[in-house]
Amino acid sequence: MATYKILLLPGDGIGPEVAGEVSKVLAWFTRAGIARFETETDLVGGAAIDAHGVPLSEAAMDRAKAADAVLFGAVGGPKWAGVPYAKRPEAGLLRLRKDLGLFANLRPAICYPALADASALKRELVEGLDIVIVRELTGGVYFGEPKEIVTLEDGQKRAVDTQIYTTGEIERIAAVAFDLARKRRNKVASAEKHNVMKTGVLWKETVTRLHAEQYSDVGLEHVLADNCAMQLVRNPKQYDVLVTDNLFGDILSDVAAMLTGSLGMLPSASLGAVENGTRRALYEPVHGSAPDIAGQNLANPIAMIGSLAMALRYSFGLLEAADQLESAITRTLAAGTRTRDIAAPGANAVGTTEMGDAIVREL
Amino acid sequence: MATYKILLLPGDGIGPEVAGEVSKVLAWFTRAGIARFETETDLVGGAAIDAHGVPLSEAAMDRAKAADAVLFGAVGGPKWAGVPYAKRPEAGLLRLRKDLGLFANLRPAICYPALADASALKRELVEGLDIVIVRELTGGVYFGEPKEIVTLEDGQKRAVDTQIYTTGEIERIAAVAFDLARKRRNKVASAEKHNVMKTGVLWKETVTRLHAEQYSDVGLEHVLADNCAMQLVRNPKQYDVLVTDNLFGDILSDVAAMLTGSLGMLPSASLGAVENGTRRALYEPVHGSAPDIAGQNLANPIAMIGSLAMALRYSFGLLEAADQLESAITRTLAAGTRTRDIAAPGANAVGTTEMGDAIVREL
Ligand SMILES: CC(C)[C@H](C(=O)O)[C@@H](O)C(=O)O
Ligand SMILES: CC(C)[C@H](C(=O)O)[C@@H](O)C(=O)O
Repeated sequence: MATYKILLLPGDGIGPEVAGEVSKVLAWFTRAGIARFETETDLVGGAAIDAHGVPLSEAAMDRAKAADAVLFGAVGGPKWAGVPYAKRPEAGLLRLRKDLGLFANLRPAICYPALADASALKRELVEGLDIVIVRELTGGVYFGEPKEIVTLEDGQKRAVDTQIYTTGEIERIAAVAFDLARKRRNKVASAEKHNVMKTGVLWKETVTRLHAEQYSDVGLEHVLADNCAMQLVRNPKQYDVLVTDNLFGDILSDVAAMLTGSLGMLPSASLGAVENGTRRALYEPVHGSAPDIAGQNLANPIAMIGSLAMALRYSFGLLEAADQLESAITRTLAAGTRTRDIAAPGANAVGTTEMGDAIVREL
Repeated sequence: MATYKILLLPGDGIGPEVAGEVSKVLAWFTRAGIARFETETDLVGGAAIDAHGVPLSEAAMDRAKAADAVLFGAVGGPKWAGVPYAKRPEAGLLRLRKDLGLFANLRPAICYPALADASALKRELVEGLDIVIVRELTGGVYFGEPKEIVTLEDGQKRAVDTQIYTTGEIERIAAVAFDLARKRRNKVASAEKHNVMKTGVLWKETVTRLHAEQYSDVGLEHVLADNCAMQLVRNPKQYDVLVTDNLFGDILSDVAAMLTGSLGMLPSASLGAVENGTRRALYEPVHGSAPDIAGQNLANPIAMIGSLAMALRYSFGLLEAADQLESAITRTLAAGTRTRDIAAPGANAVGTTEMGDAIVREL
């Protein structure tokens, strides 16, 4: 039985609760003789600020580098609103992404049939929806320099952020999108603002060239990011794989996730480059830390458990186990088990731990 | 009878067709003895490129400066896809915004009752929707320098865009939002990414201070731009006035417009600062140039005619005439007159000119 090293970073808000359910699932896989997991747990975000004064300690960073996969809960909350910019909770997550080189963020937006009515959109527009947003995660305006606030002579302040992309950064994320599309419905849409941004011009040019040289069998469409946001609302099923930069990806993937009516259900994977047959990776739910419902056994753990399923698939090569876990989630839902966020108004809802238990039972 | 100077810039695609309907309405107001209009027409976008090699001639720019209001159709289309960046059709629009100092872009997102079923969202989520996005229009990543693509020593290219905001730029757009909210439901939501961007930090700080100092009677909420995009899909009616920067405004206003099901119906106003009692202004439909349906008498002229109504209100102070025109639009719709974009599947649809005529008849 192979052993995999996992770093669990539960974080803040509902993070620790949903992360707790992952531990149950890991234990089941070991009992079933499928794999052994060496799980370490550490602090990130506000929890790390409270303990160490920084949103990610050096020790935690070293553990992340040594792990086969990082499972991340969520960070942030009003408690840390006054923390200086460089030490805010989110900085812990951004440092993990950057220092682990996790340039490819895969965010599936799937509409679970049992939940189609929970969508704000009309049922026929989202039923069967299955798209993946491939978001560039270590470049763009998130990390470009200068990034500063300066005080001018007249007492005014001026803030600057810088969006930078190189040909190589665009090529490698586009390649991830094209490779993924080949395993799916073979269509990529690439979103930028080439009509306003030079990074958009280079983005479009680079994706077009890579497509012609190496992926001409894959369908490719270019779409302006503003129009893409509209199209996601108008007719999301027109897309298969959608590739875009860090900032547009942040927004478009949130729109896509919300469309499904299954926000509390959506996992994500952040992947590094393949080196010597392995790649660094971090898995996290698309939802945030939801401080308003934290500590009340109300959170839906499915996005977090689904993130583990992605880890089984992309980091450990346990494809069957991944399928098994995903179908256990689907069966649990089909049996009518619902946390509050996905329950019909007035219907019975179970808590975080009960949902986790139900999924383990289905396994 | 007062006289107002209008510069009409029809532009490309369906621009000339919808602009044509505006001329009919202007003629009616003159016949009715309400106001006289000196209308000049000039080229912008692709049409200007074809004629002069630039997307806006100096003569047209001078006319725009001399006009009381500019009415703008739409620019762009596949025909000009190969035009160099500095001369692309959109550059004409961006230059008008910048050189006329039109820093405040007001984009109402209204769901016309007769059209609620055309929305992708469930009827109850959009029925009665009435929000205004106040988008900063002359700053941010649209105009910041450096904005360039350089070739590196290894042959790679690197593209850079720069987002810059000063305290003053943020204050003046926030003031527009707060003033507008006072005339509406007295609530402002301010969207940025202060968790990632320094411009977001300054944005939030400046809006908070201005609110405390001058607008503490108005409700204020801060929301992260990615969450805001989600909330617009989940429950758009929670908002009244939404203020945000140029790039987020581009995307969020498109999402909001699409939600209403009335995209072909939404006007917008771009306003400069008040100087000597007047302000520069440009009015344009939210929709684009729709080259696929251009020249076929299929376009919906209501967004363009609604833009004229905004001009009557904000530039000419003809409040009654503005109301009159808007209610003529509402009555025309209530009577069942529909262009193809808003007709029920299979129902009869009228053309662009017939819709314009019907509105003039209602006047
Ligand atoms: C928490 C925040 C820094 C982060 C981001 O902006 O990338 C989040 O919104 C996300 O999408 O993962
Ligand atoms: C045409 C384009 C330059 C423009 C923008 O990005 O501002 C458009 O999308 C808009 O929203 O008015």
